[in-house]
Amino acid sequence: MPVNAQYRLAARPTGLPKDSDWQYTEDSAPSPGEGEFLVEVQYLSLDPAMRTWMNPGRSYVPPVGIGEVMRAAGIAKVVESRHPGFSAGQSVFGTFGVQNYAVSDGKDVQVVDTNLAPAPVFLGTLGISGITAYFGLFDVGRPEPGQTVVVSAAAGSVGIVVGQLAKIHGCRAVGIAGGPDKCRALVEEYGFDAAVDHRAGNLRADLKEHAPDGIDVFFDNVGGDVLEAALARLARGARIVLSGAVSQYNSTEGPRGPANYMQLLVRRASMTGFVFSDYTDRYPEAIKALAGWVGDGSLKPREDVVTGGIAKFPETLLKLFRGENTGKLVLAL
Amino acid sequence: MPVNAQYRLAARPTGLPKDSDWQYTEDSAPSPGEGEFLVEVQYLSLDPAMRTWMNPGRSYVPPVGIGEVMRAAGIAKVVESRHPGFSAGQSVFGTFGVQNYAVSDGKDVQVVDTNLAPAPVFLGTLGISGITAYFGLFDVGRPEPGQTVVVSAAAGSVGIVVGQLAKIHGCRAVGIAGGPDKCRALVEEYGFDAAVDHRAGNLRADLKEHAPDGIDVFFDNVGGDVLEAALARLARGARIVLSGAVSQYNSTEGPRGPANYMQLLVRRASMTGFVFSDYTDRYPEAIKALAGWVGDGSLKPREDVVTGGIAKFPETLLKLFRGENTGKLVLAL
Repeated sequence: MPVNAQYRLAARPTGLPKDSDWQYTEDSAPSPGEGEFLVEVQYLSLDPAMRTWMNPGRSYVPPVGIGEVMRAAGIAKVVESRHPGFSAGQSVFGTFGVQNYAVSDGKDVQVVDTNLAPAPVFLGTLGISGITAYFGLFDVGRPEPGQTVVVSAAAGSVGIVVGQLAKIHGCRAVGIAGGPDKCRALVEEYGFDAAVDHRAGNLRADLKEHAPDGIDVFFDNVGGDVLEAALARLARGARIVLSGAVSQYNSTEGPRGPANYMQLLVRRASMTGFVFSDYTDRYPEAIKALAGWVGDGSLKPREDVVTGGIAKFPETLLKLFRGENTGKLVLAL
Repeated sequence: MPVNAQYRLAARPTGLPKDSDWQYTEDSAPSPGEGEFLVEVQYLSLDPAMRTWMNPGRSYVPPVGIGEVMRAAGIAKVVESRHPGFSAGQSVFGTFGVQNYAVSDGKDVQVVDTNLAPAPVFLGTLGISGITAYFGLFDVGRPEPGQTVVVSAAAGSVGIVVGQLAKIHGCRAVGIAGGPDKCRALVEEYGFDAAVDHRAGNLRADLKEHAPDGIDVFFDNVGGDVLEAALARLARGARIVLSGAVSQYNSTEGPRGPANYMQLLVRRASMTGFVFSDYTDRYPEAIKALAGWVGDGSLKPREDVVTGGIAKFPETLLKLFRGENTGKLVLAL
């Protein structure tokens, strides 16, 4: 039997996860029972929300228990199947955890066609990130053509799709990202109208310059100062889409709320939270639209694939919180 | 000519307004020009939002300028008219300021029929407070019968109407108020299902007890700890109606945002700001409905009328921030 290497949650982190918060274990690969199948994980999805799953309180999903294999989505290959809906050799998307092998009963597992796009794209632009961008922007944000859409963590996996979708929809797209290289890429490679470097220290003035008529839709992945700067710049009737708060996930002082939230009243605006997994019934609609735009070149996938196998997991996860990735961060196993 | 006593803004307060933030002046009553009319103010409306108008920054209305007569709504009697739409002897509602006499061109002034209800009711249940409660609850909060509506500052002018409207609509109505007397009145006199005393120190546990299935609509007039406690108790898909943040208006440390605002994501909930004056076109609808419910006894008006004339203005305003009023606070001139 092949070895199944795993990362388990050893302790609940304070601040950024440390090596001692993880337990590396090796086991033999499990065997599928009747109605199950065995997969070998090929690509792990690394997401900021994973940090929230390590906390004790229930978020939109229960926390990962101490000693449990860390939860993670991934693309895997079916190795052996005793399930009528899956067969050996298929590529599948599912939440298989940070490990080389997993057994599944097929719940919430989708077959993906890696002839259409490389496997990591099914974790990013044609996967969770694209789906999150699609429903968050169009269903929650509801921008009208000509309106200004601002997205934070714009060079991240979701943000880079949001800005491109806003452009496809006929909106002005402004990204907020960390560092001049990311900002340049957003404008020059991904067609954003403007990008604002939040590390440059002029966030409010820069937003004023690039969203002169105010922000109609703010798609927030960051929270903290970035959210406050956007609140201060809302257009009347604006919609804030709450998708994440990566600036807060590792805070050791506890999360901080936006002090100027009453701008929602002043601007008759709303702030609405959503979770992509509420839209499972409509995934096919999103995937079809996203694949169409990828096909005609109006939406450029961007994946940041780290090689080196499962041993790189703890270190690679930290790249997210240091803002070192551009596009979807994926670990190849 | 009669004397026109006025309170003007002398300085922008830090924290609670002090006597030295006001300037008392006396002038002779003004004369109406062609197309204008002169009113004598009879009842002043005292509203928490007045504190926000004293700050330098623009809120949903521009700030009151230093040296200007303090802005206030009121009920007045037309004394002399050179305006075709108004005649001497009529009672009118308008924003006439903290003074005995004012000249108006009729803009945003409504005639009220004091045969239908006492004049102060047109500042409260059949005035701004009732209109705010009506549109905030039904248009922004959109409760369904059987759902749980929680309102903060529930014994205040807006809150006491919100809870009664929630009951009329078939909802469970829970009020948050300061002190046992107010809480008792809300349940025994105004038909709330429950009232929680935020001063008792068990706000979260008490909300859990009285909103066991979570909060579907939270109508917030308070902010701060009360908002955080409600966020921690939201039902899935909940709507927070942002109507005010009285706990924050006199803060000398600057306003504080709700640290757990990401509960909006966890609960797929929204927080939406609104201002009653956006609904001017639909005031007749609200007034008709409110007057109908007052008429059939399902909605009890509650006004807290302070006598003593304009000299009592600075002291009476502070009652709002000390939570000393029940229902609409009105100063009789």
